[in-house]
Amino acid sequence: MNPSHIEHIGIAVKSLEEAIPFFEKLLGTKCYAIEEVVDQKVKTAFLRIGQTKIELLEPTSPESTIAAFIEKNNGKGGMHHIAFAVESLEDQLEEAKEYGIKLIDNEPRGGAEGLSIAFLHPKSTFGVLTELCEDKKK
Amino acid sequence: MNPSHIEHIGIAVKSLEEAIPFFEKLLGTKCYAIEEVVDQKVKTAFLRIGQTKIELLEPTSPESTIAAFIEKNNGKGGMHHIAFAVESLEDQLEEAKEYGIKLIDNEPRGGAEGLSIAFLHPKSTFGVLTELCEDKKK
Repeated sequence: MNPSHIEHIGIAVKSLEEAIPFFEKLLGTKCYAIEEVVDQKVKTAFLRIGQTKIELLEPTSPESTIAAFIEKNNGKGGMHHIAFAVESLEDQLEEAKEYGIKLIDNEPRGGAEGLSIAFLHPKSTFGVLTELCEDKKK
Repeated sequence: MNPSHIEHIGIAVKSLEEAIPFFEKLLGTKCYAIEEVVDQKVKTAFLRIGQTKIELLEPTSPESTIAAFIEKNNGKGGMHHIAFAVESLEDQLEEAKEYGIKLIDNEPRGGAEGLSIAFLHPKSTFGVLTELCEDKKK
């Protein structure tokens, strides 16, 4: 497989309103976008740091996997996933399958910021929830 | 505060021997360094991905905080910390303190790869164990 860089780090938070000012201070940059991803039941906020983005994720429903993650972490948020930028996501998923990696998404689907995304299963990735992202607009 | 980029992502693993071939496959690159950090009771392995490194951390003692992290995560590893590259680490720690961020390290100390490092406390950083790194050799 051949990702070019870390596209973003996903961080689960209980409240974007509380978290955004902190991460703006930490990173010395302003949040540049807030977007709701309805099918994931999350509201996301993005900040840039070098090549990478920080994606803050607030659950919009108790049924969101982000709500479950926060609950499992004693009500605190924390680092949720790592996303790598790839070209030709379909080929990368095929390669992952051939290598024996279990996939959460067998096919690319739509993610935040108009990216085409798919998750690998943390059981196959040493406990690290891993996303692959392709920007088809490029 | 004004970090320039994500210096590395720290991932706790039970065994470097098992984890390195997987991450080499995932990232399409070879591990370029293995180093023991005696005072942290860890053995680390590094791989590059764009501007950032992946730092795999294997505990060398059951008393290592990495061993405790793995145990807390049902015996699985996972994302442990995020490290930002900064200039003038002392000034950044001063700024963090002024902003009310609790520090784990009040003063810079030596980390892997000869970097000068300090950790912020996850209680102050929305559950994200955060490291600041300065490369004084630059």
